[in-house]
Amino acid sequence: METIEEGKDLLLYLDGRRKYLVRVKADEEFHTHKGVVKLGKLIGRPYGVKVESSLGVTFYALKPLPKDYAVKFARRTQIIYPKDMALIVLYAGIEPGSKVVEAGTGSAALTSILAHQVKPSGHVYSYEVRREILEAARRNLERAGVLEYVTLKEGDVTRSIEEENVDAVVLDMATPWLVVENAWEALKPSGVFASFSPTIEQVVKTVETLKASDFTDVETVECLIRRYQVEAGRTRPETLTVAHTGYLTFARKTLK
Amino acid sequence: METIEEGKDLLLYLDGRRKYLVRVKADEEFHTHKGVVKLGKLIGRPYGVKVESSLGVTFYALKPLPKDYAVKFARRTQIIYPKDMALIVLYAGIEPGSKVVEAGTGSAALTSILAHQVKPSGHVYSYEVRREILEAARRNLERAGVLEYVTLKEGDVTRSIEEENVDAVVLDMATPWLVVENAWEALKPSGVFASFSPTIEQVVKTVETLKASDFTDVETVECLIRRYQVEAGRTRPETLTVAHTGYLTFARKTLK
Amino acid sequence: METIEEGKDLLLYLDGRRKYLVRVKADEEFHTHKGVVKLGKLIGRPYGVKVESSLGVTFYALKPLPKDYAVKFARRTQIIYPKDMALIVLYAGIEPGSKVVEAGTGSAALTSILAHQVKPSGHVYSYEVRREILEAARRNLERAGVLEYVTLKEGDVTRSIEEENVDAVVLDMATPWLVVENAWEALKPSGVFASFSPTIEQVVKTVETLKASDFTDVETVECLIRRYQVEAGRTRPETLTVAHTGYLTFARKTLK
Amino acid sequence: METIEEGKDLLLYLDGRRKYLVRVKADEEFHTHKGVVKLGKLIGRPYGVKVESSLGVTFYALKPLPKDYAVKFARRTQIIYPKDMALIVLYAGIEPGSKVVEAGTGSAALTSILAHQVKPSGHVYSYEVRREILEAARRNLERAGVLEYVTLKEGDVTRSIEEENVDAVVLDMATPWLVVENAWEALKPSGVFASFSPTIEQVVKTVETLKASDFTDVETVECLIRRYQVEAGRTRPETLTVAHTGYLTFARKTLK
Repeated sequence: METIEEGKDLLLYLDGRRKYLVRVKADEEFHTHKGVVKLGKLIGRPYGVKVESSLGVTFYALKPLPKDYAVKFARRTQIIYPKDMALIVLYAGIEPGSKVVEAGTGSAALTSILAHQVKPSGHVYSYEVRREILEAARRNLERAGVLEYVTLKEGDVTRSIEEENVDAVVLDMATPWLVVENAWEALKPSGVFASFSPTIEQVVKTVETLKASDFTDVETVECLIRRYQVEAGRTRPETLTVAHTGYLTFARKTLK
Repeated sequence: METIEEGKDLLLYLDGRRKYLVRVKADEEFHTHKGVVKLGKLIGRPYGVKVESSLGVTFYALKPLPKDYAVKFARRTQIIYPKDMALIVLYAGIEPGSKVVEAGTGSAALTSILAHQVKPSGHVYSYEVRREILEAARRNLERAGVLEYVTLKEGDVTRSIEEENVDAVVLDMATPWLVVENAWEALKPSGVFASFSPTIEQVVKTVETLKASDFTDVETVECLIRRYQVEAGRTRPETLTVAHTGYLTFARKTLK
Repeated sequence: METIEEGKDLLLYLDGRRKYLVRVKADEEFHTHKGVVKLGKLIGRPYGVKVESSLGVTFYALKPLPKDYAVKFARRTQIIYPKDMALIVLYAGIEPGSKVVEAGTGSAALTSILAHQVKPSGHVYSYEVRREILEAARRNLERAGVLEYVTLKEGDVTRSIEEENVDAVVLDMATPWLVVENAWEALKPSGVFASFSPTIEQVVKTVETLKASDFTDVETVECLIRRYQVEAGRTRPETLTVAHTGYLTFARKTLK
Repeated sequence: METIEEGKDLLLYLDGRRKYLVRVKADEEFHTHKGVVKLGKLIGRPYGVKVESSLGVTFYALKPLPKDYAVKFARRTQIIYPKDMALIVLYAGIEPGSKVVEAGTGSAALTSILAHQVKPSGHVYSYEVRREILEAARRNLERAGVLEYVTLKEGDVTRSIEEENVDAVVLDMATPWLVVENAWEALKPSGVFASFSPTIEQVVKTVETLKASDFTDVETVECLIRRYQVEAGRTRPETLTVAHTGYLTFARKTLK
């Protein structure tokens, strides 16, 4: 049975809206408005264990999933959600062993998911133009335990992509249409172009460029999630929801 | 450059609604209402190549993605869609190396996706009560190239699950609430229970059972996809859509 | 109790997908694949009465609602749905006594709803550029019993609107942005501009024009309907749905 | 041109999220965080006029639409939204002259819309079991200018409905299935039963009761609204939305 160790992460779960990703240290306390949780006493206990805060409130010490890291990393600088990442993984055919080019890195939320799915034999080459945020991305990937499967690169994919024969190019950046030509060069034949864009004008430009280039199976979808409150006699969708994050566009490279 | 070989599969792409998964044989012709495609002449050519039918219509010979197999397998007996499979993979934390129990196998559409994502070091144990459909499932998994990562089992998970210490239990069956106890036994602490159900009554029973058992972080979501017709001046969501396949319920095992 | 009379319409109801709007004649038979219904024998019976076809299948003879006419009229030439008509009525503040300009008339489906809601003291001025379809529109309005509340006009609202001081201008036409100026002239201060457009590019042009003109409270919404299959133990949203008809844009006229 | 008069209401519009329904008085100031608006100086001006606050911010003095009253009334005690009210009006066939029974009154938000649409020759009989809120409902209806078209009744429609031969029974209450029998008695043949319910269990009970009674064309829908941010180059659905208010169930009375 896998036990909680010092230096590892926990997902401290209170309820559906309050889940905290915390690093375990022997002498560390985690303060919440529901009381203090002494993390040290969890060391050596199995994941899944209950723990009471100083106010007597029950938390659960869960093992973080890849998406729990992605949610935490994504909070500040990106708006792509796990639902979108999930679709990118499946629709872009990303699997163990895949070689993927990604841009931009941002906080490495999507990068961490891609790395988790391609490991151990695959690799993610992640480009970012803003040198100042690469260090935070590196720390996040290290925390998620997937840094070794990622090469972080300061660079602009609208200018060039150095890799060749990659399985997929995944874009979460402002001007994906400017990358279509370089993506074509980098992809292996039949490889997948995938792009996430918040606005419809970005989508139109990207799709028009793809259709004018050697790509086929060009498809744009939007993924919407409804969360449900489930309880006998009171079951209903949640009242408020995130109704839009972005559109996802996919295409397959063809030979000229 | 990866080339098309005899005995391998192609995704013969005509347009967004007409994609055919076909096996390449030297002397085989593929007949469509847009003419005949001679598959033999594609042997030795790279994936992504264009091919003209006897009527002069252009098809593309793409390399099938895992989801292309799943879509083909799913056609007859299941209603779970790639969008749902994608969410299951990410929300259940399924990654290379994961050990997964699945039921029921059905046509192995979801099984094939799970196998693709856990390979090569992980494994899927897939249970099915209907012996007569296991052979078709086996053939599908072989075709998708992932049979070695799957153990097909004739058995009823409402009675027992033989595996222990698994990372996730994934259910696409009529009575998931009857599996909650066995899933708890099979899962490693903090492991993930995931269930797909078309009706809300199934969801309510499953969620009530999970909440009365040692599970936490119980969450029910529905994933909806909108496809877009994108073309400058004519951009709009598609008129008709599949509006519902099923609800997805997730939970994490806690210690008693 | 209101009884069925010769020359009046019935909504012959078989099930949720098969409802027939038919005119009652003493000697007329209505043929369906579920047998023949003799309409004559319904004369003098109250609405809501059951009637058996020649094959013993039960139909109900309902009194048509305004939306039943609109659905029938809309079938051929328009794609605006009752859900959109409903929102237009409420968001545009259309009520008994309202004076409304509409374009284009089309088959008069929306016209008939507007007329129903403004009657008896209000009026709808409906413009259509295609003279050849005005006669069918006139017949439809007569059938729906609201012709006296409508003035059908052959004309192009991008060129001019003759009415003044109207409460609302309602557009279902290809180029609503070209009508913004004329709508402003026709509306009373604080009056409502309402437009239905299938594509997002139409919406952007219209909204940009409204914002550059003397309109405020510019709002674009999309109305989506999910239909449910409700049955204890089998409750779920319907599988297929109409996912998009069009976007609705509303604005209020301000003084210069 | 209709001018603003003392004692009448204004919709003071700042932006899409900030619209204030205020009564005009000669010596009254309306305080907002964008400065003070002197309402008195608007008297005698036409609706639609611009007015500057003490901080130089522009507001527009619009004439309130029926829905603007409904939105204001609904804020505290009800969750039915204008989108739902709009569908009820059209799907229940409510038009000028309709005779409607409604329960419960609540804050009279839906009542005010129904009254607006049936006036002047129709009437709404609105039942409420909580005597203490009827006075507030009465004031709201008076404010909306439709009190004369409504009879407010302290009473429980699960016990009895006094009216006969009504066109529609509209329910926004916790136990609509307990009203099915009384609604049948009150409705004219072919009349419409309409019910709004937040939870799916309420829907199932109501639909099952309707199907076991003499009703046909039983239909449950959910109306979803997406609002769009429209601006050339930045067009997208709004991020957050109200994803669920309730389900709408409709049925038509048949003869026994």
